[in-house]
Amino acid sequence: MPSNNLYQYSVLSALMSGAASSGAPLSHILSHGTHGLGTFQSLQGELIILDGSAYQIKSDGSVTPDLEKDDPDRIIPFAMVTPFEPTTTSTVSFGSKQELSEKISALLPRTANHFLAFRVDGVFEGVSVRTVGGQISRHEGLVNVGKRQTTKTFPSIRGTIVGFRSPAWFQGISVAGDHMHLISEDRKVGGHLQDLRAGMEGVRLSAATIHRFDLELPEEDDDFRDAQLGVDDEGIRAVEG
Amino acid sequence: MPSNNLYQYSVLSALMSGAASSGAPLSHILSHGTHGLGTFQSLQGELIILDGSAYQIKSDGSVTPDLEKDDPDRIIPFAMVTPFEPTTTSTVSFGSKQELSEKISALLPRTANHFLAFRVDGVFEGVSVRTVGGQISRHEGLVNVGKRQTTKTFPSIRGTIVGFRSPAWFQGISVAGDHMHLISEDRKVGGHLQDLRAGMEGVRLSAATIHRFDLELPEEDDDFRDAQLGVDDEGIRAVEG
Repeated sequence: MPSNNLYQYSVLSALMSGAASSGAPLSHILSHGTHGLGTFQSLQGELIILDGSAYQIKSDGSVTPDLEKDDPDRIIPFAMVTPFEPTTTSTVSFGSKQELSEKISALLPRTANHFLAFRVDGVFEGVSVRTVGGQISRHEGLVNVGKRQTTKTFPSIRGTIVGFRSPAWFQGISVAGDHMHLISEDRKVGGHLQDLRAGMEGVRLSAATIHRFDLELPEEDDDFRDAQLGVDDEGIRAVEG
Repeated sequence: MPSNNLYQYSVLSALMSGAASSGAPLSHILSHGTHGLGTFQSLQGELIILDGSAYQIKSDGSVTPDLEKDDPDRIIPFAMVTPFEPTTTSTVSFGSKQELSEKISALLPRTANHFLAFRVDGVFEGVSVRTVGGQISRHEGLVNVGKRQTTKTFPSIRGTIVGFRSPAWFQGISVAGDHMHLISEDRKVGGHLQDLRAGMEGVRLSAATIHRFDLELPEEDDDFRDAQLGVDDEGIRAVEG
């Protein structure tokens, strides 16, 4: 497990086209790293992997912890994961998710053609997260599923953001730009991050540049084989932005 | 070195934008497989890797063999390589490169969202190959370099095609569709394959589906870092089609 390899199972455009009924066992995903994000069979919630533990954040607001112990065979149709060994750490402040992205760019300049892994720890304010609640039919695409997503806001959360940045030219394979999931320190709430600002004392940002991207594609998966995959840039921005 | 992993160094769009001055040593490329293709520093010719041996096909028509022994540190700015363990083999006939692609699709159906590696051995007729001759300035893009490429035709060649197929949605990262280099059995001539037909007795086509794509990006390479990478679909078709 070489440091800061990014392993990805399947491609985002497969979820966009509704291919989310099969995947790899969670234990296989976790064999590639300790820091990651993804989703579940039928798009039932958000996956966050933090310090080697896997959590399912559901649209009813609940969080199921310790999936790696209780359900190692859980099917994961899409995930990104890395061992994550940060090469740089800084205390930062920001007033929006966009400003957080700018802080990451400042910390690791001239990395537009590389992948980044990052983590942010601390108190966040004005937090907005969303969680997808699952497909209502087998091939429902992520954009439609996203229209029914649950959005929650919190005045203040102490917790951690797990994130990846992918090059713009990777749109459709991954999410171009920053993709972040958040979980609270008490592991009670979280979701796909929509917006937030750093708390008064600032937060701790750790990051690493990634030069190696290992993509595993579903093998015996009829939905994936037959999916019409392409780059739906507008759709991805709508649901993952 | 798991079977039929496809390893790729850098991305095609880096060559399109003219980033071809640095890369990985040939020995590093060859540690990932025995069957591959690519190019050289400053786009000086075509790389073909066959049965673990590396050849440089130059625009003057000459072929330099045994690069892995004589020049293991040779800089390779772009390459794709796999151990290649074919899962299916068939004797086929075809009247054009397009028909060869159709034969490959028939041999491995429903693989539009996967990578394929293939090899074709036998006597080919009406062979047309081209070879790029190198950049005339450091950042000259592949499309311009391709405009000066040397094209050669041969009535008949006994030899081998090394090829990869990438999904349409991989355009820019690799060459979408089929990318083939050919070398003669006597290792005297070859190049990037433009057209051909199978000889009277048919040729032997071997292929495998690839579910794992491992991408390594240049690390300490200013040209790569600063390149404006995007998908130049028309340009890629012009030079790699």
